[in-house]
Amino acid sequence: MGSSVQEPARGARGRVTLQIIADALGVSTATVSLALRNAPVVAEATRLRVHQAARDLGYTYNRGAAALRTARSDMLAVALSDVALPDHAAILGAVEDTARAAGRTILLGTTAEDLVRQEQVLAMLREFRPDGLLIAPAAGTKAAALYHLVAAGIPVVQVAREVDGLAFDYVGSDETLAACLAVEHLLALGHRRIGMIGGAEGVSSHRDRRRAFCEALQRAGVPVDCGWLLDGYGSRETGIAGMGRLLALKEAPTAVVCVDDLTAIGAMIGLARADLRPGRDLSVVGCGDAPEAVAFEPQLSTVRAHHAAIGRRAAEVLMRRIAEPEAPPERHVIPPELVVRASCARLERIAA
Amino acid sequence: MGSSVQEPARGARGRVTLQIIADALGVSTATVSLALRNAPVVAEATRLRVHQAARDLGYTYNRGAAALRTARSDMLAVALSDVALPDHAAILGAVEDTARAAGRTILLGTTAEDLVRQEQVLAMLREFRPDGLLIAPAAGTKAAALYHLVAAGIPVVQVAREVDGLAFDYVGSDETLAACLAVEHLLALGHRRIGMIGGAEGVSSHRDRRRAFCEALQRAGVPVDCGWLLDGYGSRETGIAGMGRLLALKEAPTAVVCVDDLTAIGAMIGLARADLRPGRDLSVVGCGDAPEAVAFEPQLSTVRAHHAAIGRRAAEVLMRRIAEPEAPPERHVIPPELVVRASCARLERIAA
Repeated sequence: MGSSVQEPARGARGRVTLQIIADALGVSTATVSLALRNAPVVAEATRLRVHQAARDLGYTYNRGAAALRTARSDMLAVALSDVALPDHAAILGAVEDTARAAGRTILLGTTAEDLVRQEQVLAMLREFRPDGLLIAPAAGTKAAALYHLVAAGIPVVQVAREVDGLAFDYVGSDETLAACLAVEHLLALGHRRIGMIGGAEGVSSHRDRRRAFCEALQRAGVPVDCGWLLDGYGSRETGIAGMGRLLALKEAPTAVVCVDDLTAIGAMIGLARADLRPGRDLSVVGCGDAPEAVAFEPQLSTVRAHHAAIGRRAAEVLMRRIAEPEAPPERHVIPPELVVRASCARLERIAA
Repeated sequence: MGSSVQEPARGARGRVTLQIIADALGVSTATVSLALRNAPVVAEATRLRVHQAARDLGYTYNRGAAALRTARSDMLAVALSDVALPDHAAILGAVEDTARAAGRTILLGTTAEDLVRQEQVLAMLREFRPDGLLIAPAAGTKAAALYHLVAAGIPVVQVAREVDGLAFDYVGSDETLAACLAVEHLLALGHRRIGMIGGAEGVSSHRDRRRAFCEALQRAGVPVDCGWLLDGYGSRETGIAGMGRLLALKEAPTAVVCVDDLTAIGAMIGLARADLRPGRDLSVVGCGDAPEAVAFEPQLSTVRAHHAAIGRRAAEVLMRRIAEPEAPPERHVIPPELVVRASCARLERIAA
């Protein structure tokens, strides 16, 4: 067989180069290069011999060199707050799957809700020349913090959160609908004293949930007690502390909406620490549908955001944006759905 | 000031090139290049002018081009099972911090305990020419699945798990000590009927924990009941199902060690579903110390693996390995510690 190839000398760092394959087969490097890219100009027999030799010799296509030739790196940068947050982990998983299916890989940076760290992370990601950036901006991000990427030829798509006044593509959950679904569920159960735990003004998704929460109550003619609106990033600690503060009030709410599921689980832990039980002594609704929601006892009623669909769509929008930098910006807002489990009860049962 | 620079024409894709900076300052591109790399041959005044102009013009160092010149990409590939697993999320966070502090970024791939997917992910990561790979091998990985990376000039460091018969660097927790600490805690509380939930034969850390669990009981002269050893990947579902099976036995254990904290939390949920309470009706010990461990009610007693230290050390070992490919392989095994909280009780209290 023409494809049996002797082990040749290796190039720098032990890597097999086009030259080595060309020498082994007695053809030109141009032929090898064209054959590896399956250019129709190369005869089929030659193409197969080159591919076989490349496999035998352990040749790896050099993305770095190809990127310089084609001004495309096949890398998508992803900047998120924290991969340990279940919402961000789910989005990241779907982005990676979608990118991999399209032959691209993920450059990861995390910002920990810290604007200085975000600036450093973005400056570094930019140096690696990703084809584009997907970002869930850290709390309080200003538009100016992202312009320099676009100026450097790196398109930016926002996911899960967005920055005011930035005409970039955005993919996220319908936060207004999410809060409405939660409030309407509690109203239908007879609750009128409803609080909300968690929410950071600098995070667009939190702000939108909080605003829609208040508007849904006002539409129903139910007063909103400011003492029942407690700020905080989404975390178990925010939920535990928030529930503690609500239970210490002279008149506590009978139901709470939480800004995300971690906070809701924290709120349920806070109840347990006061020897109270969600779905019996107080109703709790989350937002997101994290894996913990169904594992907790009692299982958490929540508004499911379709994180995998959001991540998938965001990666698709970014790849389209890379291909068509001049197309008008797109907004994709994916509707969430209410998932009723065991953490809520009718007001009469709670009051009894 | 000499540094006031007019906006010049941009290079391809709107990027500022060395030529543009050189033209703006009336110096050679070689001078610009040397000045940007702070070469001592360039006069300090020139160096400052070049840096100022680079900043003014929005020049970004081109890592791709530099990588081809120096055969260094400054990218570390990381392959993990799932970023949603708390142990892996904590390791990934520390790896990213350590890499960023050293001017490197992370190429991420996830394997979902699937050997075919792992093969695809590794082949793709390899094409991007990372300087090295950090991997927590998927369950059942064989040594041959990793050799091709080293053959392609990409050093591999194993983290949290290791493959049999592979003389690569390894950084992980001391799994033998972890299981001993858990068993000895339960023995000291008077327990003699002790089970273990979770553990997959193809995952080295699970296998080591299971083996050390059995040996610690045998050393204490306590019989190991095979019906109390339940397999499974670490997850809440494994814990819930495992506890269900143990409670259905004619003679159930009075205490369980779980392969990780997710499994332990599942086991506690399983108890709650049977109207039993950890730390009152049965003792539960976890492994890892995930954020959920302290949020659950009752708080989980566990063996804390220092994931952040493991991730940091693994990144350092990989960067050292990249610098010294021929150095002998290193093993770093970081001792865990017992954290006593509220999920265990003395046998007399449970029996009462």
